Amino acid sequence: MALFSSLTPVFIAIICVLIGVIMKKSGEKEKRDTKSKHPSRLWVDEDLKDGTDHPLEEEEGEEEWQGLEENVAHVLFTGERYSEAEMIERSQTFYELLNKRRSVRFLSDEPVPREVIDNVIRTAGTSPSGAHTEPWTFVVVQDPYLKHKIREIVEEEEEINYKKRMGDRWVNDLKRLRTNWIKEYLDTAPYLILIFKQVYGRLPNGKKKTHYYNEISVSIACGILLAALQNAGLYTVTSTPLNCGPQLRVLLQRPANEKLLLLLPVGYPRKDATVPALTRKPLEDIMVVM
Amino acid sequence: MALFSSLTPVFIAIICVLIGVIMKKSGEKEKRDTKSKHPSRLWVDEDLKDGTDHPLEEEEGEEEWQGLEENVAHVLFTGERYSEAEMIERSQTFYELLNKRRSVRFLSDEPVPREVIDNVIRTAGTSPSGAHTEPWTFVVVQDPYLKHKIREIVEEEEEINYKKRMGDRWVNDLKRLRTNWIKEYLDTAPYLILIFKQVYGRLPNGKKKTHYYNEISVSIACGILLAALQNAGLYTVTSTPLNCGPQLRVLLQRPANEKLLLLLPVGYPRKDATVPALTRKPLEDIMVVM
Repeated sequence: MALFSSLTPVFIAIICVLIGVIMKKSGEKEKRDTKSKHPSRLWVDEDLKDGTDHPLEEEEGEEEWQGLEENVAHVLFTGERYSEAEMIERSQTFYELLNKRRSVRFLSDEPVPREVIDNVIRTAGTSPSGAHTEPWTFVVVQDPYLKHKIREIVEEEEEINYKKRMGDRWVNDLKRLRTNWIKEYLDTAPYLILIFKQVYGRLPNGKKKTHYYNEISVSIACGILLAALQNAGLYTVTSTPLNCGPQLRVLLQRPANEKLLLLLPVGYPRKDATVPALTRKPLEDIMVVM
Repeated sequence: MALFSSLTPVFIAIICVLIGVIMKKSGEKEKRDTKSKHPSRLWVDEDLKDGTDHPLEEEEGEEEWQGLEENVAHVLFTGERYSEAEMIERSQTFYELLNKRRSVRFLSDEPVPREVIDNVIRTAGTSPSGAHTEPWTFVVVQDPYLKHKIREIVEEEEEINYKKRMGDRWVNDLKRLRTNWIKEYLDTAPYLILIFKQVYGRLPNGKKKTHYYNEISVSIACGILLAALQNAGLYTVTSTPLNCGPQLRVLLQRPANEKLLLLLPVGYPRKDATVPALTRKPLEDIMVVM
């Protein structure tokens, strides 16, 4: 990365402005050319919209995620190279590490070193993203009052979900199985990581900047985050707080272009933590070789 | 996992049928209760639809991804536990490994051990998924003829994209920068991994089974796949073949419930491979602590 140091911030700013001008021109042309050819297509999940949304006009994405990156210098690249035996061994060891991961919803209140949280989020930030827009914000909540407010919002919505959406029979069945709308881990976990996708950005001239494939990009970053947590010996449960996004966004003072994608409580498993006795599909059920 | 062996396939089948009955009943109730309350919401990206789609009726997802898992036995869980110093060191080392990852589109034709490919896909399969539906299919293409057919399909669409969608000025600018619709890596990479999301599944009784949050789930699995590739010393470029999904699905004989999400060519960087001189956002630009 030493080669990159010649790219001073000023140079980068000039490039950004140039990209903005080029995109604007081509965007105008594109609108004329294709407006009627492409039927309506949504970039943003409807369920993550809220009243303050400013939906972008529909735009086509880049096929390759490096589209905008083409406007900067190119440098030679040589990656790590291992022997074949090393590759097999490394891939096997990594599989065994990640195969021990389970979603854990019984988390203790033991403190976790903040440096580890910084490192796992740094790691998530190495993810690729559409046109290198890096459209993610990781909000780490450690304040007990805020955690409790989040719990109140999530539980209130979840109670409505359970009472309105599920039939009596299902709710009764779930009672026996100890599942309900109570999310104790939102209080006990030392950290809650709320991951927001930035559905658009801002160009230096203040205009909106398309964040191509932002939901896929941020989800990929979350996959890398889950791998980093497992590698560090930390546990979580992947949750998508249905209908809570707008309230949580306002609580956490995130701008309107950010939509909540996932909420990950992070900590150590409680001594009495349990997980469902599930198995995973074998390789032959998920892979096809041609 | 030894504890799980008591769950014989027969037992699992019985549970599945029970889940099916419960879901059907609650689904019927849900429809009556909420039909008018929730405005239209799309689960499936419009751009990945094709003429053979059988869209599911709209359904609400589970908030926690383990919803359906509640119907199986629960077992005590104790994860790996490292000292704080170890956690910090492990998280730092993993960050440094993944921070070396770059999207590489100049891939050599050197063969890669198949066992490594198996292991990285096994690793991706450890990803969490909405209600443990594991809604992914990884199609690994090594046959030169098929790879070339894929290249033809992708390049044809991409040429249309370039000629129709981009303004003359943008195309001219890109010419200087060596970007066009030619994707040589689709021929040269020893493996192409095409990742399909299963937008719905089948219950034992043949009825459609909702795959909650299938796009997010499969994207998370791809994040874990990218981490596994980097760990093994393999390189790729994350691509979303716009408008090619239906043709590639038919070419690879995938069923109509599967939609192409990503295409990853996998191999070693060519000796003369270059990458754009990009930097990543610093931690303070992607993380907010409260």
